[in-house]
Amino acid sequence: MRIGLVGLGKMGANMRSRLRARGVEVVGYDRNPDVTDVASLADLVAELPAGERLVWVMVPAGDVTRAVLDELAGLMTAGDAVIEGGNSHYVEDGVRAAALAEHGIGYLDAGVSGGIWGLDNGYGLMVGGDAELVARAMPVFDALRPDGPRDEGFVHAGAVGAGHFAKMVHNGIEYGLMQAYAEGYELLEAKDIVTDVPGTLKAWSRGTVVRSWLLDLLVKALEEDPSLAEISDWVDDSGEGRWTVDEAIDSAVPLPVISAALFARFASRQGASPAMKAVSALRNQFGGHATRPAASEG
Amino acid sequence: MRIGLVGLGKMGANMRSRLRARGVEVVGYDRNPDVTDVASLADLVAELPAGERLVWVMVPAGDVTRAVLDELAGLMTAGDAVIEGGNSHYVEDGVRAAALAEHGIGYLDAGVSGGIWGLDNGYGLMVGGDAELVARAMPVFDALRPDGPRDEGFVHAGAVGAGHFAKMVHNGIEYGLMQAYAEGYELLEAKDIVTDVPGTLKAWSRGTVVRSWLLDLLVKALEEDPSLAEISDWVDDSGEGRWTVDEAIDSAVPLPVISAALFARFASRQGASPAMKAVSALRNQFGGHATRPAASEG
Amino acid sequence: MRIGLVGLGKMGANMRSRLRARGVEVVGYDRNPDVTDVASLADLVAELPAGERLVWVMVPAGDVTRAVLDELAGLMTAGDAVIEGGNSHYVEDGVRAAALAEHGIGYLDAGVSGGIWGLDNGYGLMVGGDAELVARAMPVFDALRPDGPRDEGFVHAGAVGAGHFAKMVHNGIEYGLMQAYAEGYELLEAKDIVTDVPGTLKAWSRGTVVRSWLLDLLVKALEEDPSLAEISDWVDDSGEGRWTVDEAIDSAVPLPVISAALFARFASRQGASPAMKAVSALRNQFGGHATRPAASEG
Amino acid sequence: MRIGLVGLGKMGANMRSRLRARGVEVVGYDRNPDVTDVASLADLVAELPAGERLVWVMVPAGDVTRAVLDELAGLMTAGDAVIEGGNSHYVEDGVRAAALAEHGIGYLDAGVSGGIWGLDNGYGLMVGGDAELVARAMPVFDALRPDGPRDEGFVHAGAVGAGHFAKMVHNGIEYGLMQAYAEGYELLEAKDIVTDVPGTLKAWSRGTVVRSWLLDLLVKALEEDPSLAEISDWVDDSGEGRWTVDEAIDSAVPLPVISAALFARFASRQGASPAMKAVSALRNQFGGHATRPAASEG
Repeated sequence: MRIGLVGLGKMGANMRSRLRARGVEVVGYDRNPDVTDVASLADLVAELPAGERLVWVMVPAGDVTRAVLDELAGLMTAGDAVIEGGNSHYVEDGVRAAALAEHGIGYLDAGVSGGIWGLDNGYGLMVGGDAELVARAMPVFDALRPDGPRDEGFVHAGAVGAGHFAKMVHNGIEYGLMQAYAEGYELLEAKDIVTDVPGTLKAWSRGTVVRSWLLDLLVKALEEDPSLAEISDWVDDSGEGRWTVDEAIDSAVPLPVISAALFARFASRQGASPAMKAVSALRNQFGGHATRPAASEG
Repeated sequence: MRIGLVGLGKMGANMRSRLRARGVEVVGYDRNPDVTDVASLADLVAELPAGERLVWVMVPAGDVTRAVLDELAGLMTAGDAVIEGGNSHYVEDGVRAAALAEHGIGYLDAGVSGGIWGLDNGYGLMVGGDAELVARAMPVFDALRPDGPRDEGFVHAGAVGAGHFAKMVHNGIEYGLMQAYAEGYELLEAKDIVTDVPGTLKAWSRGTVVRSWLLDLLVKALEEDPSLAEISDWVDDSGEGRWTVDEAIDSAVPLPVISAALFARFASRQGASPAMKAVSALRNQFGGHATRPAASEG
Repeated sequence: MRIGLVGLGKMGANMRSRLRARGVEVVGYDRNPDVTDVASLADLVAELPAGERLVWVMVPAGDVTRAVLDELAGLMTAGDAVIEGGNSHYVEDGVRAAALAEHGIGYLDAGVSGGIWGLDNGYGLMVGGDAELVARAMPVFDALRPDGPRDEGFVHAGAVGAGHFAKMVHNGIEYGLMQAYAEGYELLEAKDIVTDVPGTLKAWSRGTVVRSWLLDLLVKALEEDPSLAEISDWVDDSGEGRWTVDEAIDSAVPLPVISAALFARFASRQGASPAMKAVSALRNQFGGHATRPAASEG
Repeated sequence: MRIGLVGLGKMGANMRSRLRARGVEVVGYDRNPDVTDVASLADLVAELPAGERLVWVMVPAGDVTRAVLDELAGLMTAGDAVIEGGNSHYVEDGVRAAALAEHGIGYLDAGVSGGIWGLDNGYGLMVGGDAELVARAMPVFDALRPDGPRDEGFVHAGAVGAGHFAKMVHNGIEYGLMQAYAEGYELLEAKDIVTDVPGTLKAWSRGTVVRSWLLDLLVKALEEDPSLAEISDWVDDSGEGRWTVDEAIDSAVPLPVISAALFARFASRQGASPAMKAVSALRNQFGGHATRPAASEG
C-alpha cells in the first residue's frame, strides 16, 4: 500500500511515522522543505498510481484545506480518492465530495482523535463516505488505528460528512469531560480538607468510576507541576465545540454541560467581562455604592 | 404610631426618613453617634410603651443581628415585638422567634427590597409571622411600602420565616435578571452591527417585553458611563443567591439560570481560575504544546 | 401620511388600528379576505404615491417574507421603500436590501416588541438602515411607538440589519428574564414556607428590584389560574433565542443564562430525553440495578 | 488479618468476597439472616481481638450509619477502630470521630468507588484520618484496591473527613462526565448523519481523547439495547452531587458543568415543570394565545 499524505505538521508527521512503521508507504508533502518528501503536490500525485491514488489531506481546516483540495482536483484523475482528515466542519464535506466527484475522484472524511499520543497508541478514526472506498482504504485505517479489535478504534459512521460529524461530537464531549474534571480539581483545591490533591486524582486511576485517559493526563500534568503554577488559565477553543452547540441548537437538543464548558473557555480569555461590568453597574445603581466590593443586594 | 429602629446605615437611615415623613414616630439607634437618636438599646426601649413596643431591627445579617436580638430579649417585655428586616437566612427566623417567645416577645421577619430608591419609591415588603402581629404593625408597613394598592408592595407571605424566604427567592431571581440583561449587553457590544448600544437599551424602556426597573437602571448607568469604562467587572454576592441555589438543591428544583448567574459572579472575582488551568494543562498534555494559545483539540 | 401594510395577522392588524387611530392612513393587505383592505399586493402598491411609497411588511419570517419582498420588488418603483418588521434573521437584511436597491427601492429593518399589548401601549421599535429613510418614516414610527420621549421607545440602532439584530438580542434577554422568574416561582411553590405564592409575586409589583412588565404578566396569569393548572409546560421557541446563542458563539461571548433558558425550552418539549436515558443506562451499568430508581452512585 | 464488616448489601457482600479471596478474614454482619455470618453486632465484635479490632461499616448513609456507629461505640473498646465506608457527608465524620474518640476508638473515613465491578476490578479508595491507623488498616486497603501500584487506587487524602470529601468530589465529577457523554449521544441520535451511533461510541474505545471506563459502560449498554428503548429517562441522584454543588457555593467555586448535570437529573424526574408552566403562561400573556404551541416571541 502506498499513499500520499499532505500536511506534515505535528499530527501529519506522526501519522506518516506510524504508517511507515506499519508497512504503508507514504509520500508526504508539506510546504516546509525540512519535512517534505517531495517538492510539490504535483510531484506527490506523480508518485502514486493513476486511477488508484489515495491522498490523505491533513492540513488546517478552512481555507488551507479548501486550497489543497482544489489543487488536487486539478492534478488527480478519475478513480483516485482523497481522505480529508482535518478538523473540518461536516457541512463542507458534501460540497467537497461533489466537486471532486465531477472529476471522478472519490472522497472520504475522517475524524482523527489521539493528539500527539496517536503515534504510539494509534488514532481513533471515524470515517464517512462510500463503503467501497472505505474498504479500499482499510489498510491505511488499520495502520493508523490502535491495536485491538478494529471496531474499538475505527468506525464507518455513515455517508460523506458522518466522519467529521462524529469527530465534532467527540470533541464536544471532550469539552464537557475536561471541564468536569477541572471543576472537581478546583473544588478539591479550594478547601483545606483534602491535603493531597494530586495524590487523590492519581488514586482515581484504577477501579473508580471516573477513571479515563483524560484523568491520566491530568495526573501527569500535576506530577509535572503539582499546583499548575506554570499553566495559564487562558483556554482556546478550536471550532468543534462551537459547532457542536450550533448543531444542538439547530436540532433543539439541550446541551447544558457542553455549552457551559464552551462558555467557560470564552470567559477564560476575557480581560474584563463586559457582562459582569453591567451587573456591577446595576448593583451600584440600586445599592448606591460606586466601588465598594462587598455591597448588599437590593 | 411610634417605633424603635435599630441600625441606621444606608437602608435604616432612609427608612427612618420615610417613616417620619409619613407620620410614624421613630426612635433610632445606631452605634454610630453621628446618626443615632439615643445612646443605647436600653434607651431606645425605654422610650417605647412597655408591652406594646415594636422594634424594627435593620442591621447586618448574622452575628450582628443575633447580638442585637439577644440584647433586646433582655430589655423588652411580654407583649412587645421585634421586626427583623435584615437579609437573614430564613432558617434562623424560627430559632429567633422561639427564643423571643420565651420572653413573651413577638417576632416578625420582613424581607425588604428597594435599595437606596426605597426612600422615595417605597420598599417592597414580604412579611412572615403571626397575623395578629402583622395587623398591629400594618401602619409601619403602610408607611414604608410604595404608594398604590397595598397588595402590590406588601405581602403577608406566611408564618415566621416566610418573609425572608420570599426575599431570598426575590434576590435569586434578581441575579438571573441582571445576568440576562448583562449577557445581552455584552453581545450587543461584541458586534459592530448595533452602533448605538446605550440608545438601544434606552429604546427598550417603553412598550417592549423586557422593560423593567433594572433595565431603567442599566440605561441610567450607561448614560453616566456609556462604555462602563469606570466600572469593575468584579461582582460580589451577598448570601441570598447562594441560599436560593442551596434551597433549590434541597428541594430538587432545577435552577440553571439562577445558578449560572451566581457562578458568573464567583468567576468574576477569581484571578486565575484553577479549573481553567486544569483544562489548559489537559490540552497541553494531549496536544503536545505547552504555551501556544491556539492549540487544536484532540 | 399614507402607508401600505402587508400582513394583518395578530400583530399587523393591531398595528393598523394603532396607526389609523393616530392619523396615519393605512392600506392593508392580507391573504385573508376577511381582514384585507385590497385584493392584492398590486392593488396595495397602486394606492400609494409612486416614488414615495412606504410599505411595512409584517408577515412570518423566512419564506413568506422573502416571497412578499420579491413580489414587491417587481411592483414598486425607484424612490419607494420597504420596512421589514417581521422577526427575520438580521443576516438576511443585507441580502434583501441589496436586491431592492437594484430597483432603487429603499429598505429598513424594524424590530418590533410589544405583543398584543402594543395596540394600547405602543410598540418598542429598533430600526436599522439609512438615516434619511428613517427620517422619512418617522411619522409612522412615532405613531407606533409608546407615548413619551421618542428615545424611550424607538432607536435608530445602526445600518441595515441593526434593527433585527437588536430585536434578536432583546428576545434573547427575554428568554433569560422569563426563566429567572419561572425558576423563582417554582422554588416558592416547592416549599410550604411561603403560603401565598401569587400574593408574594404580586407584592413585588412596586418598589422591589425585580419589578417589571413580565412580572406584571406573571401576576396576571396567576390571578387567572393561581396554580397554573390549565397551562402546559411545553414551551416553544421562535428562532431569536437560537440566533442569539449562535451569535454569541460566533463572537466568543459567554451566554450561560440565555443558553440555559433556551435549553430549558428544548427540554420542555421532549417526551423521554435520550440524554437522560443514557445517564440512566450508565448508572444501571455500574450500579448493577436495572430499574431501581433510587440507585446509589458508584 | 481479620476484620469485621457491617453491611452485606450489594457493595458489602462483594467487598467481603474480595477480601476473603485475598486472604483477609472477614466476620460479616447484616440484618438479613441469609447473608450474615453472625447474629448480632455484639457477636461480630466478640469474634475480633479486643483492643485491636477493625470494623468496616458499609451501610446506608445517614440514620443507619449513625445507629450502627452508636451501637459499636458501646461494644468496642479502647484501641479498636472503625472504618466508615458509606457514602456519608464529610461533615459528619468529625462528629463521629470525636464521639468514638471518647471511648478510645479510632476512626477512618473511606470513600469507595467501583460499583458492582469492584469485586473483580478492585475498589478505588480515598481515606481520611490518622496516619498510624491508616498504616494499621493497610492490608485491608491493599486487598480491596485494584492491582497495580498502590497510589493508583488508594490515597490517604488527609485528616478525618478527607476521604468522604474526596469521594464527594469524585461523584460530582462523575455527574458531569456522564452528562457530557449523554449529551453527545443525544446529538448523534438527533441527526441522521451518523447512521451507526452505537458503533461510533464503540470506536472511541481506544486511541481517542474521550476514552474512559464510563464510555466502555455506555458502549456495553448500547450493545444490550441499541436505542435504549428499555431504559427510563428518570434519573435519581444520591446526595453527593448535591453536596458537591453545596460545597462549591460555600467556597465560591464556579461549578457550571457539575451543577448543570445535577439539575438535568432533577428535571428528569419532574412530571410537568412548574417553571416551564410559568414561562408558558408568560408567553400566553404577552402573545395573546392561550394554547397555541408555536407562538411567536414578543
